[in-house]
Amino acid sequence: MADDADPLVIFTPSGKRGRFPAGTPVLEAARRLGVDLDSVCGGRGICSKCQVTPGFGSFPKHGVTVAAGALSAWNAVEERYRSKRGLIDGRRLGCQAKIEADVVIDVPPESQVHKQVVRKEADAREIVLDPATRLYYVEVAEPDMHEPKGDLERLVEALEREWGLVGVAGDLRTIRMLQKALREGSWRVTCAVYFGDGSQRGRIVQVWPGFYDGSIYGVAFDVGSTTVACHLCDLQSGAVLASAGLMNPQIRFGEDLMSRVSYAMMNPGGDADMTKAVREAVNALIGQVCAEAMIAREDILEGVFVGNPVMHHLLLGIDPVELGGAPFALATSGGLTLWANEIEVEMHPDARLFVLPCIAGHVGADAAAVALAEAPHKSEDLVLIVDVGTNAEILLGDESGVLACSSPTGPAFEGAQISCGQRAAPGAIERVRIDPETKVPRFKVIGCEFWSDDPAFETAVGERGVTGICGSGIIEAVAEMRLAGVLDEDGAIGSAAQAGTPLCVEDGRTWSYVIREEGPLGPRIAVTQTDVRAIQLAKAALYAGARLLMDERGVERVDRVVLAGAFGAHISPLHAMALGMIPDCPLDAVTSAGNAAGAGARIALLNAAARREIAALATRIVKVETAVEPRFQEHFVAAMALPHKTAPYPHLAEVATLPRVSFGGAGGGEGEGRRRRRRVPA
Amino acid sequence: MADDADPLVIFTPSGKRGRFPAGTPVLEAARRLGVDLDSVCGGRGICSKCQVTPGFGSFPKHGVTVAAGALSAWNAVEERYRSKRGLIDGRRLGCQAKIEADVVIDVPPESQVHKQVVRKEADAREIVLDPATRLYYVEVAEPDMHEPKGDLERLVEALEREWGLVGVAGDLRTIRMLQKALREGSWRVTCAVYFGDGSQRGRIVQVWPGFYDGSIYGVAFDVGSTTVACHLCDLQSGAVLASAGLMNPQIRFGEDLMSRVSYAMMNPGGDADMTKAVREAVNALIGQVCAEAMIAREDILEGVFVGNPVMHHLLLGIDPVELGGAPFALATSGGLTLWANEIEVEMHPDARLFVLPCIAGHVGADAAAVALAEAPHKSEDLVLIVDVGTNAEILLGDESGVLACSSPTGPAFEGAQISCGQRAAPGAIERVRIDPETKVPRFKVIGCEFWSDDPAFETAVGERGVTGICGSGIIEAVAEMRLAGVLDEDGAIGSAAQAGTPLCVEDGRTWSYVIREEGPLGPRIAVTQTDVRAIQLAKAALYAGARLLMDERGVERVDRVVLAGAFGAHISPLHAMALGMIPDCPLDAVTSAGNAAGAGARIALLNAAARREIAALATRIVKVETAVEPRFQEHFVAAMALPHKTAPYPHLAEVATLPRVSFGGAGGGEGEGRRRRRRVPA
Repeated sequence: MADDADPLVIFTPSGKRGRFPAGTPVLEAARRLGVDLDSVCGGRGICSKCQVTPGFGSFPKHGVTVAAGALSAWNAVEERYRSKRGLIDGRRLGCQAKIEADVVIDVPPESQVHKQVVRKEADAREIVLDPATRLYYVEVAEPDMHEPKGDLERLVEALEREWGLVGVAGDLRTIRMLQKALREGSWRVTCAVYFGDGSQRGRIVQVWPGFYDGSIYGVAFDVGSTTVACHLCDLQSGAVLASAGLMNPQIRFGEDLMSRVSYAMMNPGGDADMTKAVREAVNALIGQVCAEAMIAREDILEGVFVGNPVMHHLLLGIDPVELGGAPFALATSGGLTLWANEIEVEMHPDARLFVLPCIAGHVGADAAAVALAEAPHKSEDLVLIVDVGTNAEILLGDESGVLACSSPTGPAFEGAQISCGQRAAPGAIERVRIDPETKVPRFKVIGCEFWSDDPAFETAVGERGVTGICGSGIIEAVAEMRLAGVLDEDGAIGSAAQAGTPLCVEDGRTWSYVIREEGPLGPRIAVTQTDVRAIQLAKAALYAGARLLMDERGVERVDRVVLAGAFGAHISPLHAMALGMIPDCPLDAVTSAGNAAGAGARIALLNAAARREIAALATRIVKVETAVEPRFQEHFVAAMALPHKTAPYPHLAEVATLPRVSFGGAGGGEGEGRRRRRRVPA
Repeated sequence: MADDADPLVIFTPSGKRGRFPAGTPVLEAARRLGVDLDSVCGGRGICSKCQVTPGFGSFPKHGVTVAAGALSAWNAVEERYRSKRGLIDGRRLGCQAKIEADVVIDVPPESQVHKQVVRKEADAREIVLDPATRLYYVEVAEPDMHEPKGDLERLVEALEREWGLVGVAGDLRTIRMLQKALREGSWRVTCAVYFGDGSQRGRIVQVWPGFYDGSIYGVAFDVGSTTVACHLCDLQSGAVLASAGLMNPQIRFGEDLMSRVSYAMMNPGGDADMTKAVREAVNALIGQVCAEAMIAREDILEGVFVGNPVMHHLLLGIDPVELGGAPFALATSGGLTLWANEIEVEMHPDARLFVLPCIAGHVGADAAAVALAEAPHKSEDLVLIVDVGTNAEILLGDESGVLACSSPTGPAFEGAQISCGQRAAPGAIERVRIDPETKVPRFKVIGCEFWSDDPAFETAVGERGVTGICGSGIIEAVAEMRLAGVLDEDGAIGSAAQAGTPLCVEDGRTWSYVIREEGPLGPRIAVTQTDVRAIQLAKAALYAGARLLMDERGVERVDRVVLAGAFGAHISPLHAMALGMIPDCPLDAVTSAGNAAGAGARIALLNAAARREIAALATRIVKVETAVEPRFQEHFVAAMALPHKTAPYPHLAEVATLPRVSFGGAGGGEGEGRRRRRRVPA
């Protein structure tokens, strides 16, 4: 036992401290103090995960002075490790360096198990690494005919003896692998143990002979109606090694959710066809990210999936028809842990998947993922989170409670059902600015760094040319048309005379606004009255959903707005507000969260506790069902118009001119809106 | 709450009693008192499992007199049940009949969950029914879009609300089944819930719409080196509905265990070939028992397997090569719970299997099953249990402790390696008697009720004739030859002159004893000197194993002997002792347990607690490794001779004449024994 004469060891950054007899290895001191210092080999000088940086000299803050000999001398194990694999100057292996006198030891982030993972996107929340699957190196007792315990049972004993893991389970596959690995590794093996089943008992997933020098991987999937996205992560470092996306091949069965549910209703076996299609996309994406990161599929031990309820059911092979009408009954609302092969996902044969819970029949696992990433339940101010896709998920709340709904925005925000629309790909117009004086537009296309009015543009855009306009492009175009007075408060495009520009051209009984004339490098690209109506319908659905939640909460304004989704990353707060897509709010309180659903999936992949957190949170979120709520219809109709007509937007008026004009345009938005609602009647 | 004025209810046979307010249903009173009264429908008058027999009149033993109106009047639910399905006179449905005054209620055995199952064989132990899978009928809440819980989650709530089952789990298959079943059954379903994974949480295996009127089934397998046997059981009643056996098709890879291990060693992929062969036999047997009982494979929800370590490994697809040499390392020694499809066993797609633990590298799950069936650890006197097959499992013990070993007897006891040997099938001689005066034999063949000296024999045996001699036949023949003085104490067959019978005929340099001359209905059947040597080797191995355990225990005699295995059911104690196969013991203390390994498998199938019991017991049994124990060799050599020479058998001498003769026969058993040991050298 330690006494006051023993050396004092202080760990940074945790500040944990304690006295240990001279000769205690740093790793052991760290463990006894509960300091977060990683190790896979259990202190045998093999894995190098326990690297630390001792500090020397005076530490007035800690009240100690560290002498040169405070740690034992550099030893042969460290020397061999440095010569073979390299070691940063000043670093020591925590399992080899022994405490000889008072010392301050810094644990660098990469030596912490629960390290923070840097997310690229602007973030409300950091990811703390705490994966469900971990590696353990053990020395297993040799078989003894007088104590005839099986290979598996001796491994389980070793995991308990060396790592304190009680009652780890192994199945038949483990037993078969283990028999060979134990003999090949001379009774030393590395195990990947999975702890994600809600039970305290781990489960052996993979066994390697000797010390396994590689890493283990996981994939996080966001299965959207239009796009399926995949991130490959290193489960030991938390790093994203590769990302890839594909069009959801289910699109051939219907562009939006309800048309896919209809397809399943009308065609026996239709749901199975869609299940097959989306699983093929998932497997293709796994192939892509593995190729990019140069790893084998079989090294992927875990996967996490998020998606809206229809995508969730179809991915899992559950008939989605019940989701097509009231009461929108989910087959399962809880988080689901299953084997990858149960849904034909091709990775490690014993890989486990976690599918986030669905919040309600219209508010899916994608919304749960957004909640996990943006943590509205931990927000001190009232936050509105809008995740825009073909279906929008909307969350409103703070520490005192969170409300959620979904809104059927349709695919217009993703560039579909737009006359010159296309998906976000090179050649697509993604940004638009219209000079309020001249009404002349300029734009940027994906894959070209110059604006269209730059002399270098035509050369830079090259032979690919300008092929269409994507979701964020059409939104900016419509918003800029409104700000430039080309569009009135009802959403009517003015005639050339009314708008004061020859770019407004007659198009049947209505007018279109030309962004680019036809030329050698592409077709004419214009925004038609029908395009504007599609965007109005979509934004009205979005706004009505948000507004419904605000009614439910009894508030007239929110403190901040988070725009999430691929859309959220590309649309400016100004344009979102100029369209009346979101309620009024200070512009600097509108932020973009990028792909928050994907980020939530990654959090659940890298942090096992987050899976329990979202399971608990999902049941606490109060769901508001837009489909049967009469006020939703009212808000929707009222929201068809653009600011000012819709509602006062004082914060928008501060930064932008909102021309008060009316061209008495073609057809009121209201009636059209009613006819074109996409939701299947309850 | 009950008070002293409330009616008193007394349940028999348990004797449990309590007072309940008038109007309490009998089922509810039983539940509150912890009386074992079955119910699947939860008291809705559907399942009729809760039938009881109220008693009327005076019960001096219980101190009550029961009046005619002690239970509520016969009601419409009971009437409908009786008219549709029938109800024994005097019976009531416990969920319908209400207690109105003091009453005595008898719970008949068929209404008890934990009923006793009658075993056909002479038994050391009864089976108490307590299956791992049970049926529950529930009414599930309808979906509510304002409380958007999934179908699965609402079912889990109903199971907790109605049955007190906490946190029952369901997987993707369950969810898919449930979605349809709930709607088809108007939110009423019957679930099969499995509780055998060591966790307290049940797992839903199958869901039926409405009340499921059928039963659920399980199979118990004994996978022997020579024979694979299967019993199909009703998991609700415990009844054996069908039994079937097949030759183990692995025999083409080697007759005994070690030759199969050698096959795996010498032939890459040889273990996989043997795995495939035995699994085919398992699936064929399931087909047979299902056909016989007229049920579908998919109705089999559970299976239990026992077998020696090599059979255990090969069935599971684990390479058995490690079992071929010291230290005879098992890949796993624990009991194993796995999905049927993990080992390609074709039954319900979510069926679970339990494989009994192996006790040591030579003492397998079959020995564990014998221990479960014969319960030596609960015996007050010292019992020797011998399970004879191609490999013999031997257990010795009592309440204070149990020892185990295995002994390589070889296939002679099953009729193999015997000149006229055949497996036990119609036409095989199974019993032999030799007149000690005339030395003339008589015999019985399988499939014919007459002894061979009966005038009706030749007609009765018919065209099939007499085809050979099976294991029990050769053992009786050799024992009777000894008792008649045709064989001396060394096992030499006397010449015609020495033995005093022309039935001893010259056969090269040794003599054979003719049991039946060649005739129109079959070949000559004789016991050769080589046959006698084979039996001597086998019995010496068996005796040496038993003797080794007695040494280990420090005893010279045992209180009783149990002969188990197919062999055990067919050999008489007298003949076993006349051969010196078992140690001396009062003849009436030698009993046969039939197929104890198969009985143990059935116990584990029908009683979930028994699985935990054997898992605990297997680790407590002390294993003695015959292969490396020098005393085993000594005992083996000494045991080659027959009583008297071997050892004094006072109990045998009391009932049989043991002629003290020596024909100075061909070759000492000892040297031959050494050369012919079958075990692969350590």
